[in-house]
Amino acid sequence: MSSKAKKAVILFSGGLDSTTVLAQAQMDGFECYAMSFDYSQRHSVELASAKKIAANANVAEHKIIKLDLAQIGGSALTDLSIDVPVDELVDEPDGSIPVTYVPARNTIFLSIALGWAEVIGANHIFVGVNAVDYSGYPDCRPEYIEAFEKMANLATKVGVEEHSIHIETPLIDLTKAEITQLGISLGIDYSQTVSCYLADEDGKACGVCDSCRLRRQGFKDADIYDPTRYQ
Amino acid sequence: MSSKAKKAVILFSGGLDSTTVLAQAQMDGFECYAMSFDYSQRHSVELASAKKIAANANVAEHKIIKLDLAQIGGSALTDLSIDVPVDELVDEPDGSIPVTYVPARNTIFLSIALGWAEVIGANHIFVGVNAVDYSGYPDCRPEYIEAFEKMANLATKVGVEEHSIHIETPLIDLTKAEITQLGISLGIDYSQTVSCYLADEDGKACGVCDSCRLRRQGFKDADIYDPTRYQ
Repeated sequence: MSSKAKKAVILFSGGLDSTTVLAQAQMDGFECYAMSFDYSQRHSVELASAKKIAANANVAEHKIIKLDLAQIGGSALTDLSIDVPVDELVDEPDGSIPVTYVPARNTIFLSIALGWAEVIGANHIFVGVNAVDYSGYPDCRPEYIEAFEKMANLATKVGVEEHSIHIETPLIDLTKAEITQLGISLGIDYSQTVSCYLADEDGKACGVCDSCRLRRQGFKDADIYDPTRYQ
Repeated sequence: MSSKAKKAVILFSGGLDSTTVLAQAQMDGFECYAMSFDYSQRHSVELASAKKIAANANVAEHKIIKLDLAQIGGSALTDLSIDVPVDELVDEPDGSIPVTYVPARNTIFLSIALGWAEVIGANHIFVGVNAVDYSGYPDCRPEYIEAFEKMANLATKVGVEEHSIHIETPLIDLTKAEITQLGISLGIDYSQTVSCYLADEDGKACGVCDSCRLRRQGFKDADIYDPTRYQ
């Protein structure tokens, strides 16, 4: 990577979406700084997968930030007393937000990424949010991302001086099938990625949680072989 | 406190400003949930002071969140290899932002407070930012706070459903002297608060760092006895 390459911070969980985003950012010529979070998520096995993928992708640096969101709770992902739904889900009867929603998670992760971006001189932060085949989380929608970007340019030295913080969301308008197709065209081996909220200690997926169902349907709709390692 | 009291999350460092904010929020009738951060700040002795003050104030709960911002660095407060200035400062010759600025700190803290607010059903987040006698940090200005509030109402379940997250900044337009006068009228014992970036292990202040100079001048301008415990 040339020393003149533009730097980008990539929010990187090791799942299908963020792995596709990382590959896309590298294809676009960015020098990539990957950031993952050890936030007491029940599927923290995703971090082992994130480490492997980031190393294979030759990122400039991969940071794993520890932040115990179980101290706050309020989500099936951080509070083990709340079950992850494994049956209907996604299409909640009243259009409400599912219990796997982690309060303010994307805002917290983007904010910490913003701090790192400012320190290393990166003007671009990539995040794999998607507002088509998604779980209805409010912090995945374009209007939210736009508001975060505006705030970020008022919050930081570089933002104030150059108005130049950009939140990049290459997947936001894509279906899960299109994301999968994009990733395949970028050469991703999706068998290495972990999306499942209930993944076992080997990273094998349950196949029935919200995240698994969206992912499985994506491969099916794209007519691509699903290489996910199921339990 | 009545069970019908409105809840508020208070960003609370145990310094002069946030202690004044906590007292003001209680005076306004809020049931207060104080949140402090153990972020690898060099003056982490402020947390001992925060604990004592929060306990004395009978807050509903006091959480200390651990988040190692030294992993990101870029500030004299989190990177011990960068000296805290102790001479001129504040009025940087070119109006630039001093090295004690912690990249994206208020954004990170407000974001985590937002997550907690959502979980406990608090619609108000208090923060002691001030844009008069301050160090020029971009994330202390009214336009930043306004942008954060807008973003917060798009980021969260409660924000989306009720558009009801409010970022409260009772000190933003006050001089340090006015803040001190307000605090005295609210009955605060400022000898317990720690503002100093270079406080010793007993919480005694250096008297010469940016934060000390602003605080000391505040007492002087208000013509109030300065009870700060200096080294």
